[in-house]
Amino acid sequence: MSAPAITVFALTGMGEVQPGDDLVALILDTGVELAHGDILVVTSKIVSKAEGRYVQAADREEAITAETVRLVASRTADGHTMRIVENRLGMVAAAAGVDASNTPDGWVLLLPEDPDRSARTLAAGLRAATGAEVGVILSDTLGRPWREGQTDVAIGGGGVRMIADLRGTTDQAGKVLSVTTPCLADELAAASDLVKGKASGNPVAVVRGRPDLVGPLTLPGASSIVRPSERDLFWLGTAEALDQGYRDGYAAALAAVHAHEPHEHEQKDAT
Amino acid sequence: MSAPAITVFALTGMGEVQPGDDLVALILDTGVELAHGDILVVTSKIVSKAEGRYVQAADREEAITAETVRLVASRTADGHTMRIVENRLGMVAAAAGVDASNTPDGWVLLLPEDPDRSARTLAAGLRAATGAEVGVILSDTLGRPWREGQTDVAIGGGGVRMIADLRGTTDQAGKVLSVTTPCLADELAAASDLVKGKASGNPVAVVRGRPDLVGPLTLPGASSIVRPSERDLFWLGTAEALDQGYRDGYAAALAAVHAHEPHEHEQKDAT
Repeated sequence: MSAPAITVFALTGMGEVQPGDDLVALILDTGVELAHGDILVVTSKIVSKAEGRYVQAADREEAITAETVRLVASRTADGHTMRIVENRLGMVAAAAGVDASNTPDGWVLLLPEDPDRSARTLAAGLRAATGAEVGVILSDTLGRPWREGQTDVAIGGGGVRMIADLRGTTDQAGKVLSVTTPCLADELAAASDLVKGKASGNPVAVVRGRPDLVGPLTLPGASSIVRPSERDLFWLGTAEALDQGYRDGYAAALAAVHAHEPHEHEQKDAT
Repeated sequence: MSAPAITVFALTGMGEVQPGDDLVALILDTGVELAHGDILVVTSKIVSKAEGRYVQAADREEAITAETVRLVASRTADGHTMRIVENRLGMVAAAAGVDASNTPDGWVLLLPEDPDRSARTLAAGLRAATGAEVGVILSDTLGRPWREGQTDVAIGGGGVRMIADLRGTTDQAGKVLSVTTPCLADELAAASDLVKGKASGNPVAVVRGRPDLVGPLTLPGASSIVRPSERDLFWLGTAEALDQGYRDGYAAALAAVHAHEPHEHEQKDAT
């Protein structure tokens, strides 16, 4: 049996993406020969650029607010407040995913309007142009609790299985793998970051060797990776939750005291 | 310029690891030819097995408690309480990282006693045996807030750069990448999971193509990825923080009322 293996390579020479650009053409113009089952991991930033999702940098905080559904946590340092929020896509991300790096001076970039739709459109275009059944993941770089540094994760998916549901399958010892659901899409995004790099300007990588993960464009997108806040144990930052609990507890104690003590105002009113 | 590329392949035919086994020999017995700059990503479970870190399954909850420094969050469902804790390594992990899958019936596995030391020892052994400067990462599978599914991350490192510090470097537009510190070790672990699989019994993968990430065994290990809880915005689960805040607020309100109202007991004592 040959060893399971993948290769991951970056596409070079794509140049700067402009609003209105056709990403299918830009990708194929690099000369890449796509094969059945290839998965293209595309930095979401270039999709945002092609979609013209620019906002003037002076309005950055306003843009973050507009993309925010709910504040999860914030930290103020050096006079600047960093907000971790749940954005309109349900993703929890610093600055709502609004991006100020690798953008022209004076401008910031919003995430693609609908990353899953963008990924499916791109996958459909590449399939039509090449005849190869390929998948597309849009990636973004996110920090995470408890661990230093950032990793690339999937924020859009077209024609790629996002999560492998191994529940019910058995391990080598014959025991059921009860809770194992590897997020393959995030692992594909992470693998691709190892060849794309942040500063190198190679925004597209191809993962070759897992054609079993590629399927119809009707597969769930990366929105299926987002856990709804009501099912999350960390839906609010610790400091924010301590504050909210304190206020609620303080008010509840005053209400309880008030309900049990002789009420001065009522007594006065009664005289 | 050739495109940046990596290959990731699993080692096959390793067989079941027993307490006391020499992992250097088991890895080289697969016939793998290691090259300068190869990074071996080793499922921490087989290191635990070689180190004989077995505990009887009946003592699982006790084992989790023993590995726990601090409870971060918990959830009870179907009569079973799942604990997310900070363990003695500083890692925040469900069940403290105590593992019941792929273990013999009746036994669970603790994490390696010192995963960074184990990784360095393994890297040193492989370097001595092959003459190739290779690096070693020990991986584990962790869930995470806000996103469904699990990904493999690095919990031990020997001779591999864990985090790329890009702060101060510039992006394509010449702007400083102020907060970008990709956690390459976690991305290497994630990439390897794509070829190792959970049920396939291939616990070691090799990442080839990033020799720049391999260096002296004195490089910081994966403990450098662990963010101390006092610098984390999510050091306590939301429900736990709301509860703690509520109790503190309730007590504070009663103390405030007590301090300002005529004190019945004191008045009685004075008569």
